[in-house]
Amino acid sequence: MTRILWVNPGEPPANLNEEFRQLLTREKEASTEVDVVSTGRGPRDLEYRYYEALVIPDTLHRLRQAEKEGYEGAVIGCFYDPGVEEARELTNLIVIGPGEASMRLASVLGHTFSVIVGREKWIPQMRENVARHGMEGRLASFRAVDLPVCEMRTDEPETARRIERAARAAVEEDGAEVIILGCTMEYGFYQDLQQRLHVPVVDPVLAAFKTAEWLVGLKNRYGWSHSKVRAYEPPPEGQIRAWDLARQYGID
Amino acid sequence: MTRILWVNPGEPPANLNEEFRQLLTREKEASTEVDVVSTGRGPRDLEYRYYEALVIPDTLHRLRQAEKEGYEGAVIGCFYDPGVEEARELTNLIVIGPGEASMRLASVLGHTFSVIVGREKWIPQMRENVARHGMEGRLASFRAVDLPVCEMRTDEPETARRIERAARAAVEEDGAEVIILGCTMEYGFYQDLQQRLHVPVVDPVLAAFKTAEWLVGLKNRYGWSHSKVRAYEPPPEGQIRAWDLARQYGID
Amino acid sequence: MTRILWVNPGEPPANLNEEFRQLLTREKEASTEVDVVSTGRGPRDLEYRYYEALVIPDTLHRLRQAEKEGYEGAVIGCFYDPGVEEARELTNLIVIGPGEASMRLASVLGHTFSVIVGREKWIPQMRENVARHGMEGRLASFRAVDLPVCEMRTDEPETARRIERAARAAVEEDGAEVIILGCTMEYGFYQDLQQRLHVPVVDPVLAAFKTAEWLVGLKNRYGWSHSKVRAYEPPPEGQIRAWDLARQYGID
Amino acid sequence: MTRILWVNPGEPPANLNEEFRQLLTREKEASTEVDVVSTGRGPRDLEYRYYEALVIPDTLHRLRQAEKEGYEGAVIGCFYDPGVEEARELTNLIVIGPGEASMRLASVLGHTFSVIVGREKWIPQMRENVARHGMEGRLASFRAVDLPVCEMRTDEPETARRIERAARAAVEEDGAEVIILGCTMEYGFYQDLQQRLHVPVVDPVLAAFKTAEWLVGLKNRYGWSHSKVRAYEPPPEGQIRAWDLARQYGID
Amino acid sequence: MTRILWVNPGEPPANLNEEFRQLLTREKEASTEVDVVSTGRGPRDLEYRYYEALVIPDTLHRLRQAEKEGYEGAVIGCFYDPGVEEARELTNLIVIGPGEASMRLASVLGHTFSVIVGREKWIPQMRENVARHGMEGRLASFRAVDLPVCEMRTDEPETARRIERAARAAVEEDGAEVIILGCTMEYGFYQDLQQRLHVPVVDPVLAAFKTAEWLVGLKNRYGWSHSKVRAYEPPPEGQIRAWDLARQYGID
Amino acid sequence: MTRILWVNPGEPPANLNEEFRQLLTREKEASTEVDVVSTGRGPRDLEYRYYEALVIPDTLHRLRQAEKEGYEGAVIGCFYDPGVEEARELTNLIVIGPGEASMRLASVLGHTFSVIVGREKWIPQMRENVARHGMEGRLASFRAVDLPVCEMRTDEPETARRIERAARAAVEEDGAEVIILGCTMEYGFYQDLQQRLHVPVVDPVLAAFKTAEWLVGLKNRYGWSHSKVRAYEPPPEGQIRAWDLARQYGID
Repeated sequence: MTRILWVNPGEPPANLNEEFRQLLTREKEASTEVDVVSTGRGPRDLEYRYYEALVIPDTLHRLRQAEKEGYEGAVIGCFYDPGVEEARELTNLIVIGPGEASMRLASVLGHTFSVIVGREKWIPQMRENVARHGMEGRLASFRAVDLPVCEMRTDEPETARRIERAARAAVEEDGAEVIILGCTMEYGFYQDLQQRLHVPVVDPVLAAFKTAEWLVGLKNRYGWSHSKVRAYEPPPEGQIRAWDLARQYGID
Repeated sequence: MTRILWVNPGEPPANLNEEFRQLLTREKEASTEVDVVSTGRGPRDLEYRYYEALVIPDTLHRLRQAEKEGYEGAVIGCFYDPGVEEARELTNLIVIGPGEASMRLASVLGHTFSVIVGREKWIPQMRENVARHGMEGRLASFRAVDLPVCEMRTDEPETARRIERAARAAVEEDGAEVIILGCTMEYGFYQDLQQRLHVPVVDPVLAAFKTAEWLVGLKNRYGWSHSKVRAYEPPPEGQIRAWDLARQYGID
Repeated sequence: MTRILWVNPGEPPANLNEEFRQLLTREKEASTEVDVVSTGRGPRDLEYRYYEALVIPDTLHRLRQAEKEGYEGAVIGCFYDPGVEEARELTNLIVIGPGEASMRLASVLGHTFSVIVGREKWIPQMRENVARHGMEGRLASFRAVDLPVCEMRTDEPETARRIERAARAAVEEDGAEVIILGCTMEYGFYQDLQQRLHVPVVDPVLAAFKTAEWLVGLKNRYGWSHSKVRAYEPPPEGQIRAWDLARQYGID
Repeated sequence: MTRILWVNPGEPPANLNEEFRQLLTREKEASTEVDVVSTGRGPRDLEYRYYEALVIPDTLHRLRQAEKEGYEGAVIGCFYDPGVEEARELTNLIVIGPGEASMRLASVLGHTFSVIVGREKWIPQMRENVARHGMEGRLASFRAVDLPVCEMRTDEPETARRIERAARAAVEEDGAEVIILGCTMEYGFYQDLQQRLHVPVVDPVLAAFKTAEWLVGLKNRYGWSHSKVRAYEPPPEGQIRAWDLARQYGID
Repeated sequence: MTRILWVNPGEPPANLNEEFRQLLTREKEASTEVDVVSTGRGPRDLEYRYYEALVIPDTLHRLRQAEKEGYEGAVIGCFYDPGVEEARELTNLIVIGPGEASMRLASVLGHTFSVIVGREKWIPQMRENVARHGMEGRLASFRAVDLPVCEMRTDEPETARRIERAARAAVEEDGAEVIILGCTMEYGFYQDLQQRLHVPVVDPVLAAFKTAEWLVGLKNRYGWSHSKVRAYEPPPEGQIRAWDLARQYGID
Repeated sequence: MTRILWVNPGEPPANLNEEFRQLLTREKEASTEVDVVSTGRGPRDLEYRYYEALVIPDTLHRLRQAEKEGYEGAVIGCFYDPGVEEARELTNLIVIGPGEASMRLASVLGHTFSVIVGREKWIPQMRENVARHGMEGRLASFRAVDLPVCEMRTDEPETARRIERAARAAVEEDGAEVIILGCTMEYGFYQDLQQRLHVPVVDPVLAAFKTAEWLVGLKNRYGWSHSKVRAYEPPPEGQIRAWDLARQYGID
């Protein structure tokens, strides 16, 4: 049994958790159990660094609780991968985000990829993530479709058209061999696009979930989990208690 | 008049704020006004990513308030520079951290620098910061003195001896031309060390404060502030209000 | 059903194929079918570039045949990953090698890894592979145990001792957070080592096989396969026939 | 008291020194004393490497004299930063050039910058400087306005128009968050441009001068000067005398 | 006497060997002896990685024989440089390919170069070669003329026109200071192009041949040959015999 | 006929020019004519950046004169390669220095090289040159023998012993496959060292001279000279005359 928790940080639009739960339930292995939650307060999306900062503590506390509840892996559902490094440090869960998962997958599928983002604003932070993962040499381009997160699903055919236009330009002009949809709110568009462009189109929601599921399997079988030496060395539980952090931050 | 706020994120040891206030008051320009605050709850130091995540929202809200109170610049007092990018996005303050300030300064003073850290745990995250600032080519080494933040000032002569031993090895074996003290809790050790080693030793507290003071001066005179295009484009105030974020996160 | 072919290129020691078949059969998912073959002629191991060059054509032809036989994925069983790029171009199989698979996995498990190789000779070519995959920033070190491939299993306790000594030095002196065993002939040593060192130790045989199995699953479900645009654009079948390559190279 | 010497290397157009003296006197701190000189012979501008080579020795000798006269810092007034490294080695002055100062400042103000140069000719050498300072990752683009140095001030409104056109393209097409004016002869254009483009526009003359002033302040207060170990280790005075270099090069 | 063997791997178009023999005989030093051979079976050109893989073993065996016949240097005649690393390992010959030779030469001739290739397909593999040789910083661009290898000489005036158009765009739009013709089938076009574009145009055939000739001269005079330590350490002859590789691969 | 001028910048020790003339005359091709000069004033060696700055103008003027005298190529005889870029810009000569020539050659001979320098002081500037030429990935190490330039030939057996000790450590501990002697005053030591270490040892004097000779041959035959577009675009002769530079700098 592999138990995965997908966290949509903040307070996403109504039904999104349920929609994702249905989607991931369709896509999971038989032996996987998946739940989708959000952290219960905060912004509706994470278009800004400020919003990410707001939701990370709640996300970490939710994952800490998830670990106690027996979950073995978690996805933090935002392409910026907010809190992923922190969660690997704090908990013993396997943790992954859509950004890292999509880039890792894309770089096996081809030599170069382009990321289709909503707005130019996103690019500098994502470029830092590309660099952190050693993928600069693989990045063909970022292309923006001029839609904020909250309008991605307002007019789906229009969004699909814009994504296709940007992705086609990436393949034809920028040398992209693979397309990554650079926002979880672009979920589901990959299938049609892939058929029209004849290159792999990575859906970040599926990439992250299937990566988490696979990594948990490896951990259960071979003991391969995030190293707790150096980068992910956890804070001492005694210190957390001595400093009374749970009470201070309103955690049960 | 230049108004700078130094924020010690979390709940640092008693007297630290006052000690820093006295230190910075001695070091400021006549026309500068400096205050030192902490965010009032949280961990005593930021040795772990989890602790950083906890204190960043409070830090951002404190800086937002500082902006309203008329401050023009801020230092976030931790060598990891937690929240610096977020604060540049959220506010119109000049914002800097000791890590970035020290590395920028050191790279003018010599071709290479070494950073003297407390524990090996700190190195991976700091190495990412070195890379983010394009300083890999300048980094001679990290050297750890095997002291957590909270023991840095327990036995100051012993700490001084360990720092000197590590710094001397960095100069003689690793090719360092400049030494950076890689923790705000190493403040004050630079002076003696500099005389003994005959290379510049950068104090991160002074480096950050004097950088903030200088940048605010440039902003006031020439209008050079953090660009609000792309990376630091701020979240719309209307959205923050519409999502009722202030109430949700207990901000006045 | 997922059908994977593991190819041990060249003519490996007797029983190796059978040993690997049993190993992979134990490790596979229920729905996976795995076979292990070698290419039937050539060197016993691939310690030299010349040996790699010799076995690549036979490997490619074996994979071309495998595709016709209905296999969906393949592992080329050597840590140098010989022929992987070529096979992705020539066939529609999912293809992976132990080197790439191990490095990709290790870089999710920690910030840095060290690779335990047999001889110094291997390092330059493997370093090129590290660079090709954008992993220079993740590489803590290579450490050699002074054993050629063909002596890796001669005295297994001695090999284990040497690997442990090298791996421990990598963790303690080089800053490695994860250890990669850098030769398929080091299979099986990971388990004991992992318990003694308290860091993840990646077995390259398992890493490659489980990666192939997972990628084939993604391909079958989402159509994500190696992009056939640019890098992996295949040679035209008509040209292969017109030039009579099959007859010239003795392929049926 | 902070004493800074601005050196315009070579024999710049009449009045330039006086114009810069007035400009810098307006911009200096009260406690700063600034003088502007040129080296008294040589080319009128440094558009070519040959011209730089010609003026560097005179510049170094002028700075050596400046050190004896009690100056504490110097700016070498050309965006190529000719002689800066040499002067840091030869003297104990704080030395900076407009190129380095502008890039350092711009990279605090935003994630990316573009440099507006006069001619394409300048780009390769400046790109080397960008790389030397670890700023490749920050460089959005170079854009040339097709004006040699000596025509920059011939028709100022036309120059302003060209710079604006190039800078606007850099922001809108190349992703620049900050603009650097890449020639000291572009001084003064920043103010108007900044208001029109809504991004910071760095004036290289002001950036260099204010950096020098600040660094001298730090040196006087904390002893932070260019490290004299390795890169900036100075030639032995005894050797300079023994080889009779002063007489040979006509220095008093 | 310097004896060089030019190998056209595979089975190139009739007369090509003879044409190259005449060309190189015209271009050689008086004391050089040059022969041109192909490997006698295989594809007509090496547009795909599969084709390269097919011809490398025959090429290596031909070079091994060449070494016995007294040749001192060899060129492997394809811009991808297939088998060059392997041949340096296996034999004591000086070995070079047109890609490496052209890039090394171009980077002395100017700061940047562009490579004019036949098809987009070639770019990812060539980009890897650029990176392997540390030339990313020198690469202005790749430009493709939309011709496969086998059509390069079909309509020579048309090919010349396409190359000129691509090369001119590289110089005028991409900042190239030097042009490299990125396919041996582009031999001879350099002369006219150079006169029209006023930048150096490197012919890969001449670049490779003259490099080989020069390196053999250095080896004969100073003993400078490919280091046999680490990267090019050769396989033990005893092992090659013990494994009966010659018989298995049909070598005499 | 190939005419090369070797310039020893400054005023080197008596007999050095004559010694080099004899050496190069022994090593030249029959059709080459070589002369050795120094610039007639200045420091005896170029251990410091200041000394380099002093000799570059005289060197450039000597090369300008050489061009008029019919020379076709020049070597600037110092491993720092002072003035090489400037000379390529100012003149139409082929120009090379020992540093660039040695590194280019070494990187064909093996994957990695170490440079044996006199003093630690030299390393930062040489490391910048390594980076400028894209060779960071090839650099195994710098090793210093603690001898200034002027003592390199004082006790030649002792110098040889020190070089051997450093070079052996580079091969055995740092992974060097090739050794570069990083100072022209180390000329001649390569031969004995090469036999003792069994790796190629590059003599910088021979490397530079033979590179110049070869490049001039290519220029004469194929017109391949330094591109005069962008980086090496020369200053206009009219401007040089109008500004009366020759008179100002005492050139005939």
